[in-house]
Amino acid sequence: MMAEILSVGTELLLGQVVDTNAAYIARRLAELGVTLYRKTTVGDNLARVSAAVREALERADIVIATGGLGPTEDDLTREAVADALSVRLVESPEVLAGLASFFASRGARMTENNRRQALRPEPGAGGLIPNPIGTAPGVLFESGDKRVICLPGVPREMERMMDSWVVPYLRDCRRGPDSAQVIKSKVVRTFGIGESALEELIVDLAHGHDNPTVATYAGGGECQVRVTARADSEPEADALIQSVLAPLGARLGRLVYGYDADTLEEAVGRQLAEAGLSMACAESCTGGLVSAMLTNVPGSSAYLDRGVVTYSNRAKVEQLAVDEKTLASHGAVSRDTAVEMATGVARIARVDIGLSVTGVAGPGGGTDAKPVGTVHFAMADMGRPSVTTARLRFGGDRAAVRTRAAKFALDLIRRHLVGDRQDHPADHPANGQ
Amino acid sequence: MMAEILSVGTELLLGQVVDTNAAYIARRLAELGVTLYRKTTVGDNLARVSAAVREALERADIVIATGGLGPTEDDLTREAVADALSVRLVESPEVLAGLASFFASRGARMTENNRRQALRPEPGAGGLIPNPIGTAPGVLFESGDKRVICLPGVPREMERMMDSWVVPYLRDCRRGPDSAQVIKSKVVRTFGIGESALEELIVDLAHGHDNPTVATYAGGGECQVRVTARADSEPEADALIQSVLAPLGARLGRLVYGYDADTLEEAVGRQLAEAGLSMACAESCTGGLVSAMLTNVPGSSAYLDRGVVTYSNRAKVEQLAVDEKTLASHGAVSRDTAVEMATGVARIARVDIGLSVTGVAGPGGGTDAKPVGTVHFAMADMGRPSVTTARLRFGGDRAAVRTRAAKFALDLIRRHLVGDRQDHPADHPANGQ
Repeated sequence: MMAEILSVGTELLLGQVVDTNAAYIARRLAELGVTLYRKTTVGDNLARVSAAVREALERADIVIATGGLGPTEDDLTREAVADALSVRLVESPEVLAGLASFFASRGARMTENNRRQALRPEPGAGGLIPNPIGTAPGVLFESGDKRVICLPGVPREMERMMDSWVVPYLRDCRRGPDSAQVIKSKVVRTFGIGESALEELIVDLAHGHDNPTVATYAGGGECQVRVTARADSEPEADALIQSVLAPLGARLGRLVYGYDADTLEEAVGRQLAEAGLSMACAESCTGGLVSAMLTNVPGSSAYLDRGVVTYSNRAKVEQLAVDEKTLASHGAVSRDTAVEMATGVARIARVDIGLSVTGVAGPGGGTDAKPVGTVHFAMADMGRPSVTTARLRFGGDRAAVRTRAAKFALDLIRRHLVGDRQDHPADHPANGQ
Repeated sequence: MMAEILSVGTELLLGQVVDTNAAYIARRLAELGVTLYRKTTVGDNLARVSAAVREALERADIVIATGGLGPTEDDLTREAVADALSVRLVESPEVLAGLASFFASRGARMTENNRRQALRPEPGAGGLIPNPIGTAPGVLFESGDKRVICLPGVPREMERMMDSWVVPYLRDCRRGPDSAQVIKSKVVRTFGIGESALEELIVDLAHGHDNPTVATYAGGGECQVRVTARADSEPEADALIQSVLAPLGARLGRLVYGYDADTLEEAVGRQLAEAGLSMACAESCTGGLVSAMLTNVPGSSAYLDRGVVTYSNRAKVEQLAVDEKTLASHGAVSRDTAVEMATGVARIARVDIGLSVTGVAGPGGGTDAKPVGTVHFAMADMGRPSVTTARLRFGGDRAAVRTRAAKFALDLIRRHLVGDRQDHPADHPANGQ
């Protein structure tokens, strides 16, 4: 089975938006073993979308299109595909009723353009694809042995519909006589090592193998290892992946915090919940990011009691009982202040673990002694009791310093709870990456 | 002048890499006024790259290709373009000597594949494009009035060569008799209205104009209007844009919070700084996102004194002096609790404005009376004094509810400070988008 991806949107051709949707769909197709030879991007123009669909269907069995399903005039993917396939669109009374009640429930008025979202291919030529989290349903066109699947351009909605509807649909399509190979991937997520150091650690695994392949990726201050296997069946692909995961795990040890879609905040949350520990955090330069990451996780109220963003010195004194003398003699960005922030928030909240971050996120505020990117961390384990501290200098702009510092802070807890009391090495990748 | 972009790389078709190069090139082309109707992605396959080049040149004058110029077996863009244009490749002695000395200086051996990086089109059919920061030079193919420009896939190298060589080259090409136009865009950023309602407000501006064009976009809980003008010069393009900005501004009024790359948190920060006001926030379901957004802005310490994330009821009582009776009788997610949180944090921090958010972010925790997505807001202006409250129900998953709630909270301050005391309309787009 051969597919092509068609991304529709003038904003993509103006370079105002990076096309992450196409990459997402491509990954899912690879996992399914569906061959993808081409991706195309065109603007919101009826003739050009229609031409691109026609050309793609000359090469492929299935076209997956994203974008142009919204409620405005320039959303015309639906009409362009219908034109390319010479299929008529008809209004779905059920969808229209659903839209009407959606708008009514929110006290809003449904516009004429909103009605277009209820258009579906005429009977026998396809149907609508449910959108569980938005108003624009997807559209399936079926014409002979060709299929065009239209999904919204909003990444969250597209991803949800891809996973819940399109993947199962394609799996069904594939149950034909010429079923292709399965491609499966497993992502190993690490924190605390840079990409080149990581690659060196596993260079023989990466280069000794054609199947599965082993490749490293870096992004968002973290590094991942992707293991990809091809096989005739899912169990065979899984077995191939497992054969590499064991040596990988042995090499990487506690650098690994999770797999696939795991996040650092989930890993830390799981550890805290399993250990029955509560925590609180006190942030300065990260300004709430650590709390915001921790509370990304549903159920985080089980372990996170509170967070305090003490941007001013006065707030540090009043809210965390940091000693004014410490601030005066060492400054707000110092080991001593970080320690008092961590122990202060833990004591006041009466929790097991207090975590603090204080630093210079930039672009201003740097000095020779404390240049932009300098961040102090402290983690107080009140039950032990012990305090772990770290000082790092992060590279990058304000946003990068803040994100990396927030992740490093979370990782301090993770390492502490897996019993890794080693000092963070001086060449920690967060340092200067 | 019409261009197409061709991204070459099997990793792009596997979805392992997001194609940021194409967006970068697209932006540069838009700035130059070069029309781009299509972007295509193909894998590292000689026949398919060659076919894609041939097809693109049927539609466009210039193809800019990225990727496939490296030293490995599967880097064959050079050969594929030569094949498509029936141009011979010859070895450049200068480039070969440069490569040899590069490898010698690193004590490395030059392989046969490395030699391929010294291949250039035969005389009269193009040349090489210098790569100041990598070993793979770019390649320019000239055939009649068609041009193919091949750049490396490494973003840093591609961007450098695009800016230093390709942009000036294209500018020169454009100095022909049919010199093209400048395209300029201005983005108007709004908050507090949904995309279809926004489009209805400005439908005559969007449809009465071919130049400039006016289009709406939605994303991240906000809507934007993009005005794009084509003209012979930048000042003429600017004048065209200005001619639409005035009526747009009159229609949208206080819905507009900024332009181009502005963010809501910058707009609020600017207002607070100009008014000389200080603030503090108390968050529950947003878990620190409001603070994190505010502190994204350099210099935010001038107005943000502190933020408190009170996830537990105990923290609300201890940290914000919320009355236990209020929590017992109305619950944590209620107007009364929101008001006490906002006034509590303002009083304790001794700031001018206290902002609070408390709600059910989901996926669990919803009830019939307070379903998932229900969020209460309060903003206390201590100088006036006044308290503004709002209750909304947001659609989407946990992340969407949190982001939309955080932005809505910031927008409460923005509207208050521009003197907009109107109640938020019932069809506020945050509601359910």
